Amino acid sequence: MSRFNRIAVIGAGLIGGSVLLALLRRKSGQTLTGWSHSRKSRDLLGGFTGVDVFETAKEAASGADLVIIATPVDKIKQTLLAITPSLKPGAIVTDVGSVKASVVQDATILPPTVSFIGSHPMAGSEKAGIEQARADLFEGRLCFITPAGKEDPAALSALRDFWQGLGSIIRECSAEQHDAIVAVTSHVPHATASALMLAVAQAPQFDITAAGSGLRDATRIAAGEENLWVSILLSNAENVVSGLSNVEKNLRALREAVAAGDQEKVAALLKAARLARQSLDPSR
Amino acid sequence: MSRFNRIAVIGAGLIGGSVLLALLRRKSGQTLTGWSHSRKSRDLLGGFTGVDVFETAKEAASGADLVIIATPVDKIKQTLLAITPSLKPGAIVTDVGSVKASVVQDATILPPTVSFIGSHPMAGSEKAGIEQARADLFEGRLCFITPAGKEDPAALSALRDFWQGLGSIIRECSAEQHDAIVAVTSHVPHATASALMLAVAQAPQFDITAAGSGLRDATRIAAGEENLWVSILLSNAENVVSGLSNVEKNLRALREAVAAGDQEKVAALLKAARLARQSLDPSR
Repeated sequence: MSRFNRIAVIGAGLIGGSVLLALLRRKSGQTLTGWSHSRKSRDLLGGFTGVDVFETAKEAASGADLVIIATPVDKIKQTLLAITPSLKPGAIVTDVGSVKASVVQDATILPPTVSFIGSHPMAGSEKAGIEQARADLFEGRLCFITPAGKEDPAALSALRDFWQGLGSIIRECSAEQHDAIVAVTSHVPHATASALMLAVAQAPQFDITAAGSGLRDATRIAAGEENLWVSILLSNAENVVSGLSNVEKNLRALREAVAAGDQEKVAALLKAARLARQSLDPSR
Repeated sequence: MSRFNRIAVIGAGLIGGSVLLALLRRKSGQTLTGWSHSRKSRDLLGGFTGVDVFETAKEAASGADLVIIATPVDKIKQTLLAITPSLKPGAIVTDVGSVKASVVQDATILPPTVSFIGSHPMAGSEKAGIEQARADLFEGRLCFITPAGKEDPAALSALRDFWQGLGSIIRECSAEQHDAIVAVTSHVPHATASALMLAVAQAPQFDITAAGSGLRDATRIAAGEENLWVSILLSNAENVVSGLSNVEKNLRALREAVAAGDQEKVAALLKAARLARQSLDPSR
């Protein structure tokens, strides 16, 4: 982290705010700047002692050695356009979006004098916003870095060190591989939890007093802010559509086995699901 | 609870074991008896000081004022048959199964000298077995009681007092209503979590290191013991099949909107899901 004298965080939600809190806690002596689209978040950011808050993204990014774009995925392109005039030659620009292939495409508008490398710290939550920011958000959590292969190795190494310095475990792969992986472990589960919640809420027999911890856990992520998730799902549409088809296929198999009273088949499906779920927590 | 001098718990898993622990903690002076199909669980039950453990269900139930059948749903009928010869005239018999209409049907084999009223304490977990039993399992949790309308009011009142004495919040409705309600809040979420887990595990791009708390929560209940759940789903097949069709319908709507790049439609579906999920936790 000490390689960067000036770090700009553009966009101050859960992730952007947490990056700043994590850097402040480390007191590494860099100049930290910040900006948020919303006046309210800028005001909250003003309460972070040690962060210089600016009225425009362009001013906040000016002269920074590392610029972290932490806006929603569908705002990244316009943010990159806005900061381009003030980017210092040699600056490293990254983002924290949950999809990578479309962001890497967006970043082709940047001048060749700067290095863009995508990041995705997997540290989101259904509780969004700078109010939820935490200095330890990245500790022990996976952070994808998606080099295109043409980067300056020094820039890649500096970005790796940066996230590791915040406690992240680094995983490097292509933007396309990233998108396929997180579709499976994050985007498809999100959409499925939403569909389950909709079906539950639509059922005439739905009785909220009978909702237990099972339903609550199974649908928790459906409480996520839809404005963030619409752009995530649409930016990763191909992988999401294919993953949702597979969930539908498995639901249909289970439904048909139940309808047929096929005890053996239902048992086989539930057992395979149990074993797969248990393998997520090998200690159990 | 003091209305019962002798209470028998037939079947010693999470629920049966927890009933005994809760009664023992209350030291209300009743005689407590227990039985389990498995030798291992009977041995563990032997460690509950104050519970007389028997080798057969019939012996354990003999002379009891309250008999609680806590075997898996598909074993209830044979358990009722086994204990019938030893049931004391005037005894109250209940169960703790997650489905009620089929159990009420099973209970028609009991002699008219005893009262059967179904119960369903909603206190299960994906962690089954007497090893997981806890004296406070029922505190503040919903317990369904499903009278058929022909019961002795004194028996119904005694059963209500019993569960309330263990900390449960009582909900009375018909067995059919119960089954429709828990299909929505429990059985369909369970099957959906299982289908999601299967689809995730089958995906060639599944990468366990990228599995975060969202996927873990969404699939937690899929770790449940399949032998319990097969009989639950099959005993409530009609409601489960209809509920799963509705989940599939919502998944398809979301998938088609994503495939079409229909931002407005995706946003509307995710927003409706978010609002429904937030209404489960009104304090947030």
